[in-house]
Amino acid sequence: MAASAPISKTIYIGPFAHSTSLTTLEIQPLGAIGVDETGTIRFVERNLHGGPDELIASFKASKSAWADAKLVCIKSTTTGFFFPGFIDTHVHAPQHPNTGLFGKTTLLDWLQKYTFPAESSFSDPSVASRVYQNFVSRTLSHGTTTAAYFATIHVPATNTLADICLQRGQRALVGRVCMDSEVSPEYYRDESAEASYQASKASIEYIRSLDPGGVIVQPIITPRFAPSCTSACLSAMGRLAQESNTRVQTHISENKGEIDLVASLFPDQKSYAHVYHAHQLLGPKTILAHCVHLSGMERRLVLESGCKISHCPASNTAITSGCAPIRLLLDEGHTVGLGTDVSGGFSPSILENVRQAVWVSRHLAMQVDSDAVKLSTEEALYLATCGGAAVVGLEDKLGGFEVGKEWDAQMILLGNVGEEGCQDGNFGEGPVDVFGWESWADRVEKWVYAGDDRNTVAVWVRGRLVHRTGRYPGYEETS
Amino acid sequence: MAASAPISKTIYIGPFAHSTSLTTLEIQPLGAIGVDETGTIRFVERNLHGGPDELIASFKASKSAWADAKLVCIKSTTTGFFFPGFIDTHVHAPQHPNTGLFGKTTLLDWLQKYTFPAESSFSDPSVASRVYQNFVSRTLSHGTTTAAYFATIHVPATNTLADICLQRGQRALVGRVCMDSEVSPEYYRDESAEASYQASKASIEYIRSLDPGGVIVQPIITPRFAPSCTSACLSAMGRLAQESNTRVQTHISENKGEIDLVASLFPDQKSYAHVYHAHQLLGPKTILAHCVHLSGMERRLVLESGCKISHCPASNTAITSGCAPIRLLLDEGHTVGLGTDVSGGFSPSILENVRQAVWVSRHLAMQVDSDAVKLSTEEALYLATCGGAAVVGLEDKLGGFEVGKEWDAQMILLGNVGEEGCQDGNFGEGPVDVFGWESWADRVEKWVYAGDDRNTVAVWVRGRLVHRTGRYPGYEETS
Repeated sequence: MAASAPISKTIYIGPFAHSTSLTTLEIQPLGAIGVDETGTIRFVERNLHGGPDELIASFKASKSAWADAKLVCIKSTTTGFFFPGFIDTHVHAPQHPNTGLFGKTTLLDWLQKYTFPAESSFSDPSVASRVYQNFVSRTLSHGTTTAAYFATIHVPATNTLADICLQRGQRALVGRVCMDSEVSPEYYRDESAEASYQASKASIEYIRSLDPGGVIVQPIITPRFAPSCTSACLSAMGRLAQESNTRVQTHISENKGEIDLVASLFPDQKSYAHVYHAHQLLGPKTILAHCVHLSGMERRLVLESGCKISHCPASNTAITSGCAPIRLLLDEGHTVGLGTDVSGGFSPSILENVRQAVWVSRHLAMQVDSDAVKLSTEEALYLATCGGAAVVGLEDKLGGFEVGKEWDAQMILLGNVGEEGCQDGNFGEGPVDVFGWESWADRVEKWVYAGDDRNTVAVWVRGRLVHRTGRYPGYEETS
Repeated sequence: MAASAPISKTIYIGPFAHSTSLTTLEIQPLGAIGVDETGTIRFVERNLHGGPDELIASFKASKSAWADAKLVCIKSTTTGFFFPGFIDTHVHAPQHPNTGLFGKTTLLDWLQKYTFPAESSFSDPSVASRVYQNFVSRTLSHGTTTAAYFATIHVPATNTLADICLQRGQRALVGRVCMDSEVSPEYYRDESAEASYQASKASIEYIRSLDPGGVIVQPIITPRFAPSCTSACLSAMGRLAQESNTRVQTHISENKGEIDLVASLFPDQKSYAHVYHAHQLLGPKTILAHCVHLSGMERRLVLESGCKISHCPASNTAITSGCAPIRLLLDEGHTVGLGTDVSGGFSPSILENVRQAVWVSRHLAMQVDSDAVKLSTEEALYLATCGGAAVVGLEDKLGGFEVGKEWDAQMILLGNVGEEGCQDGNFGEGPVDVFGWESWADRVEKWVYAGDDRNTVAVWVRGRLVHRTGRYPGYEETS
């Protein structure tokens, strides 16, 4: 298995960029990062000078323990850089075949028209294998090194997704979706709360048997959302989370029709958030997707419970759910990451969602006539990396390039425009044009606003190469 | 020159899609379109059956005049289709190197920080040639067959853009930017209204000398926007438009700060629109970009004058200008197309702006809590093709596949997911995954919401192949 094959001690040489705080993106024009056989960063050197050969010689002389390390160099030090892997904190892998489809629907009719029919087909293991292989390839190709996946209600298909993530080396939280209420169609729901409990437990046990330390894959308890679960089912999931010490993910307050539905289904609860609270589902290991329309009371409850928030801006725009008030949530102290929410979201790319987070915040700014709510590029990149790491509980390991963290990273290469300009229209270097006069901040901004998966030429998880394109320059042995 | 080389009579066989009204997208699962040596569509056959060889034999038998025609077939008739070329009704070619850069600015400071310095460098002809070659390659690669370009104030550089468009075979309206007021920096403005007039006249004459019929390139009078022109300069442009019977393009009502500035600069005028009206710049040959915040009085004046509107949704979101009320404008009877507005807009792709037009309309729908203002996919595609054709005055020639119109078209190929799903992450067929169960409407929607330039494998203008990628299957001779 890819995830268990040995890796080599490696020094990564080139420019790098990463977030050092919500508002600060450090850009190093030339650095070196040493990663050991466990995928852990052992040194980070900054402000280097000279060509690769000089640097290699100097490392050999100064760090005898690294004399036999492999080297990965970005030699085009004006158009390439290392960047932390993206963390997708909310994504429905089985909805991948519906990416880009939503027509004129909003949440509740979209579920019935597109989502439930697609997900129910995962009772067939060959469908699951085909879709999940393809989707893990897609997400890796966009630089997603960790994903919090919703699967379907099927235990075998859910386990297949965990198998594939482990085999491909993508960090994943994999959740069997739990739904037993009559809001879900008869053809696609658990038979009872007890059946939900047993099926989720079985999937948790299988995933833990695959990767007992939970280093690459771990299970996550996944009640779909309050309307699709009976109270008994939500209680069973709360109990299972306690018994098995497992993370929890669900949706909350995405759409106004959904909120009204929750109020009608759970008339005794003070709010949507209180429904989950009453069933022991809110806590520091809980990821709540959307949080578009939470009341002040709900936000306090979410904050006091220590829940984490997944912001899904592309989805919220595409299916007209609303503009989540991310500035407000950040100011209140919430932990926020980004989610693609495929296929409510129309793109498997967190980079696209970095842009969409900025656009949504600008739409909010236009509504309230205040620039203060705008997210900056730096802030959106922070949410995509460090914020996401905290949402999935891996903030000690992931998010930036610091000694002791692990090497989950992407190599980004941009395109160099020649002196004559491209005249045949075949832009083999992808969508970003660098003319040569740009500052480093400009180059990163060009990548953020004009880049795509073509610019992500290699991806590593825990020091292991898990994706590369034809542009990846490969290793150079030092010895 | 590409634009004057002879072309062959050609039959295009495969699925096709195009707008037949604002709300109707016709999708033909298998058709054939015959294009003659002038690039004009001579027949459109629908509802065909059988494989390419059968179809070819049947055409030979039934249409003797087409026996010697070349054939371009889409053999993968479930993942490919012909679509009309996109029309970009508002784009600043010299701002191409700034694509994706805007930082924390809005319109007025963005102009000073990014735009004027970049544009002023076009006094150097080698800069102009490099940037314009590259940008025409970019826009063609995104399927843009016609563009209304703003150039810079420099006559030689503007003429170079016209040369390149003609040489590359892209239909273009090319405008020397006119700006003489003190709102423009001293280092980048015309010396006087008279100098503006003479320079614009010289560029018009040059462009007309290149292409006297204006078939591929034509000039367009381009006062930048009211604040950057003195009243004398605006008058001179109005006079020049009358004298030379030339189209006009400018900006209006993009940003609230700009509107206030216009009010302070032209205190005698009733509105921003009245500034242009008073200088004879409003009429059926005028393209007004943005129209985000027009008052009811202004919209009536624009409509009564017969002006056309370029909606630039990506730009309006990116530099926080506002949400143009497109549903209202359409309901009032305005003619609307889409513009990328590079580099206020962050993408040279009209397909991206189709999506952004939908997103902006959804943000408006969320603000006013009414689904009625949402643009449908069909409507956004109409704006990108037929709407744009009407904005640039070419509605009799462009926008759809009808007998008598010209063959400005793209071949779109999507990606087929294999039975095992892609497992190496190298998606050579681009970003759209077709699994095989999709309806034709689904496939087109997947392209709209998940596609990019990788799916545009060939582009024709007036029957001439002006762009192709490695996936383009090429011609097959019939004889």
